[in-house]
Amino acid sequence: MRQLEEKILAEGTVLPGDILKVGSFLNQRIDTRLLKAMGVEIARLYEGCGVTKIMTIEASGIAIACAAGMEMGVPVLFAKKHRTSNVDGSVYQTIVHSFTHNEDYNVVISRDYLDASDHVLLVDDFLARGQALEGMIELVHLAGAQLTGVAIAIEKCFNGAGDALRRKGVRIESLAMIESMTDGEIVFRS
Amino acid sequence: MRQLEEKILAEGTVLPGDILKVGSFLNQRIDTRLLKAMGVEIARLYEGCGVTKIMTIEASGIAIACAAGMEMGVPVLFAKKHRTSNVDGSVYQTIVHSFTHNEDYNVVISRDYLDASDHVLLVDDFLARGQALEGMIELVHLAGAQLTGVAIAIEKCFNGAGDALRRKGVRIESLAMIESMTDGEIVFRS
Repeated sequence: MRQLEEKILAEGTVLPGDILKVGSFLNQRIDTRLLKAMGVEIARLYEGCGVTKIMTIEASGIAIACAAGMEMGVPVLFAKKHRTSNVDGSVYQTIVHSFTHNEDYNVVISRDYLDASDHVLLVDDFLARGQALEGMIELVHLAGAQLTGVAIAIEKCFNGAGDALRRKGVRIESLAMIESMTDGEIVFRS
Repeated sequence: MRQLEEKILAEGTVLPGDILKVGSFLNQRIDTRLLKAMGVEIARLYEGCGVTKIMTIEASGIAIACAAGMEMGVPVLFAKKHRTSNVDGSVYQTIVHSFTHNEDYNVVISRDYLDASDHVLLVDDFLARGQALEGMIELVHLAGAQLTGVAIAIEKCFNGAGDALRRKGVRIESLAMIESMTDGEIVFRS
């Protein structure tokens, strides 16, 4: 998506440790015109695919998931992060490892909001090592629902998780795909 | 806002401790048609008021803030919760007490994204005791910005914080105002 790529080149900052800082338009401060355009693009990509629900993990994916959900006219589910495990059986839950914070956390979603009749589109702001995405895929499977596909704002292709999931047959649409950002130079996949 | 009030009556659940559970449409699972309608209504209420930025605190206010921001065509800022204090001077910060979790946390926003030229609309999903809202008002003041007003999805009027701020001259527009919910019966302010 050209508009997002141009914004990344104009305002993104590459920090040590392969961190791409996009606080001026994607988190901390959201450019709502770009956000709406991303929602429209995700809706276009998955038009006619029978999506019944969008799922994201709080908090950074909420804005994009809601923008897409409003365009597509489908509900958005927030999987929630918990430090403690829920054992009362009212939720689907799995464990996700965060490389950013170097800790494991439980990701849960209420059984009330997801079931085997659902066709789910997973949405998130970043795809790098794929831990959060794999956690959401596990929740979809636990519910017996169908995974229609994935929509990501920015994929760090060099981490490999996106391509590994594609090889397993998962449809992943990333609005900006960064092939490399060595020495601060951002190169998109063509 | 009639549509929101009807949804609260149809799907909201009153739990002990004056908790209103709205997980089926406002958090956990978002009704995106209602979300869009709330964004349109907030934009209507503050039309012509010169709002330059919307601010919310992550995570539960993000969806409504973005819906309003997309309608109004202004950026959305997320104040972030931190357990630790930031002392490097790059942020505005204040302390907010959470009654829900019975703990204090730091709320911060980057100085890069808010300054004295801004006219800020604060948006959140709930207004009860007003701790989060007062924290955001403090951040606006620290930046030397103007507080244009506040937009809330659901105000628990019986907690009194909304009316106390109105008496101080703060404009607060709540889309649903709950006067009481004694014995599980929800009564709206007329």
